[in-house]
Amino acid sequence: MAKNITPRSRDFSQWYLDVIRAAELADYAPVRGCMVIRPTGYALWESIQRHFDEAFKETGHVNAYFPLLIPNSFLEKEAQHVEGFAPECAVVTHAGGEELEEPFVVRPTSETVIGHMYSKWVQSWRDLPILINQWCNVMRWEKRPRLFLRTSEFLWQEGHTAHATREEAMEETLRMLDVYQRIMKEVLALPVVPGEKSEGERFPGADNTFTCEAMMSDKKALQAGTSHFLGQNFAKAFDIKFQDRDGEVRYAWTTSWGVSTRLIGALIMTHSDDDGLILPPKVAPVKLALLPISTDQDLISSTLEPKAAELKAAIEAAIGRRTVELDTRYHLRPSDRFFHHLQRGVPLRAELGERELANQTLRLVRRDTGERIDVPMGEAPQRVLEVLEDVQRSLYERALNFRLSNTFQVSSMEEFKEVLESRGGFITAFFGGTKEDERAIKEATGATVRCFPLEDDSLGTCFYTGRQGCKRAVFAKAY
Amino acid sequence: MAKNITPRSRDFSQWYLDVIRAAELADYAPVRGCMVIRPTGYALWESIQRHFDEAFKETGHVNAYFPLLIPNSFLEKEAQHVEGFAPECAVVTHAGGEELEEPFVVRPTSETVIGHMYSKWVQSWRDLPILINQWCNVMRWEKRPRLFLRTSEFLWQEGHTAHATREEAMEETLRMLDVYQRIMKEVLALPVVPGEKSEGERFPGADNTFTCEAMMSDKKALQAGTSHFLGQNFAKAFDIKFQDRDGEVRYAWTTSWGVSTRLIGALIMTHSDDDGLILPPKVAPVKLALLPISTDQDLISSTLEPKAAELKAAIEAAIGRRTVELDTRYHLRPSDRFFHHLQRGVPLRAELGERELANQTLRLVRRDTGERIDVPMGEAPQRVLEVLEDVQRSLYERALNFRLSNTFQVSSMEEFKEVLESRGGFITAFFGGTKEDERAIKEATGATVRCFPLEDDSLGTCFYTGRQGCKRAVFAKAY
Repeated sequence: MAKNITPRSRDFSQWYLDVIRAAELADYAPVRGCMVIRPTGYALWESIQRHFDEAFKETGHVNAYFPLLIPNSFLEKEAQHVEGFAPECAVVTHAGGEELEEPFVVRPTSETVIGHMYSKWVQSWRDLPILINQWCNVMRWEKRPRLFLRTSEFLWQEGHTAHATREEAMEETLRMLDVYQRIMKEVLALPVVPGEKSEGERFPGADNTFTCEAMMSDKKALQAGTSHFLGQNFAKAFDIKFQDRDGEVRYAWTTSWGVSTRLIGALIMTHSDDDGLILPPKVAPVKLALLPISTDQDLISSTLEPKAAELKAAIEAAIGRRTVELDTRYHLRPSDRFFHHLQRGVPLRAELGERELANQTLRLVRRDTGERIDVPMGEAPQRVLEVLEDVQRSLYERALNFRLSNTFQVSSMEEFKEVLESRGGFITAFFGGTKEDERAIKEATGATVRCFPLEDDSLGTCFYTGRQGCKRAVFAKAY
Repeated sequence: MAKNITPRSRDFSQWYLDVIRAAELADYAPVRGCMVIRPTGYALWESIQRHFDEAFKETGHVNAYFPLLIPNSFLEKEAQHVEGFAPECAVVTHAGGEELEEPFVVRPTSETVIGHMYSKWVQSWRDLPILINQWCNVMRWEKRPRLFLRTSEFLWQEGHTAHATREEAMEETLRMLDVYQRIMKEVLALPVVPGEKSEGERFPGADNTFTCEAMMSDKKALQAGTSHFLGQNFAKAFDIKFQDRDGEVRYAWTTSWGVSTRLIGALIMTHSDDDGLILPPKVAPVKLALLPISTDQDLISSTLEPKAAELKAAIEAAIGRRTVELDTRYHLRPSDRFFHHLQRGVPLRAELGERELANQTLRLVRRDTGERIDVPMGEAPQRVLEVLEDVQRSLYERALNFRLSNTFQVSSMEEFKEVLESRGGFITAFFGGTKEDERAIKEATGATVRCFPLEDDSLGTCFYTGRQGCKRAVFAKAY
């Protein structure tokens, strides 16, 4: 039953794909570059969605739905935007048996069509702010697809807000970055670095882009979510104007922010091991696999299964509905049953056999450490809850320590190259270069500016240009 | 502030659109035939989704996600399917800056691509049943679009299951019809008629189609949800085979079933009135609008608002999180504030003014009847809960009585025409005609066979052909 997984140390890319296949998270679709998200993967996405959606609603946002197709002419209204996205678009040219007068692109992102609608909805300062989010599919044609990380179609949320003032819009941009960072930390156990993107890495059409950068277990960076301050660029392109309190007509200020199914890739590459997926309990759809184990059919039906059903109910009352999976596949060897749940990243396994019945205990086995813990049966719900909390905490700490011990400060280009080559990871350095300098560094080293971390306000001499009073940047090779 | 609504009796179609506009449920998009679902409408869809999704999970289904684009060649593998859907498809011919070798259609429904994946996932009887549902967007190009009822893009769920035996697949088809009917009744307060479609009205590629037919307040029928028994048609077209317990290799049996944003149209046309939307409390995102009312700013801040916040918390503890909307728009006249919530279909309004403070009461006003109920403040949570239950019950009863009193039994073609013309509504008659007979009746009367109701097992002489032992059919003009 166990599916072979290539060791991570031998071939990280193949390991990543093997983990996905063994956990049955996703498959490539018969459409080049697209994926099928299988039930195990989709349940994980639903769990991610639930946490983010709740936080969006808590911060006053509402959901809506805008059309999949966007007139080509809309894209062209914002110069940088069309330059950035047009080459990646899928184009609908025929519909209803006829050639269309104007082709439509399948949305790669929805600033344009949402901007068009906002211009109709906004007249007065009383109509602002608009705080809307959309959960949907988008398409960006990929030449080198990779499950969850880069696929031609992916699922995401895109928040789009409009405000009366620059300050409010900037506040919103940073508020949502903070929401992202908090959920990534507390739920996904991803210790991300929140920061501002350099000019060369901004969203096409944004004045500023902020990002949460995560370190994967191969020490490469992954952009886990972004929040854009769009200034008045889209408001001007789509004529989003309002009459202000003082009677003046002004352009609105807009933001957009998004996270996607890419987060599943981040989870895999942060926490998993050579046995397969490891999931933080807070985001794991199944938190505990409960396995009655015996070859004695009478014992199974008379005692084990009723006891297991009772334990399932009691544990679910403590840790949540439908979070315990009862595995009754007695036709398989116990080791195959164990491995099934191991590969799927279920945080905790509970074994219930004759020994446990005799001792009135339940054996818990942690997915992350393999540790075995025998707990008195009556205390099982509380102990499961505690162990899950400990798993959550220790996955985060492990990932944080990994990032910290693979982050290196440098102050010259030689040192940059030397450290990146010998150690990999995140390189931090004061940097004040231009877009062209960024490109030169990338060509020389393969590393890009991931962000200027917000938490670091120190200033120093640029390692590359020698310019004074520059902020510290994080560089890394990235997905 | 109030938006004009055309009286229903004057122009039903315009009334329908006016209700949508006044409630801000949806707008036409800048893409012909497509819609924007605005926050009020989307919150309603989320509420509908929650109830159905919960019922799907309770009956053992899991969610997954399949690609938006489907190779044209897939559609062609099932002859009836391609005939039914190809003319309505939107086609992607270019992507990533190049013309594609094979065009893709934007999914009009996903039997084909899901069948393709199931053929990879199913090898043994142990892999069955597969019980998967997908929430997504689909496109069917519409020449005469109508918000929520017929739009070129709409949101829906599509369940797709595969089984080892014919019996199991038929059981599943009827189980999901029953789930639909129950939620429509208990949550949406729609008294639908579950039944089997005639041959002429089947899903392209199905052996049998079952439906829930609802009567709108203009007495026309609306197909609110369908469940299809697909036999082995798609299993053969996509090679979904398995090795059975006895070692034989057999084709699987499949089903599919769906409900869509069309249900929002059904809700509007069943319950609403000339003042706008009316929503059954169980599906209404906002169940109570709470309005502190005063022109005395000191009273507002010292007493009214703290009291309102306290009431909101207490009532939400009884009826659910985020179900009470606190309306503090004191710059508007109370009548305009009332009308805002009326038009949005909020089931109950609570007024809190000086009179209420003096009497320590809260004034409740029902959306459906206009009835005013003064309740002691301390009992507000419990009383709100009770009144909402009564609103839910009476909306269902009103709709059921309307359908029953507009359903007429006939036994000849003259009677059929006479009743349909003078009374409208549902016409029931024993019917055993062919597809051609159905077409002739439609041409003569405008009415189609909506279904053969499952609950009616009486047999009789066909009103049209005179054939004996025929089942009773429901005919109606339909959306």
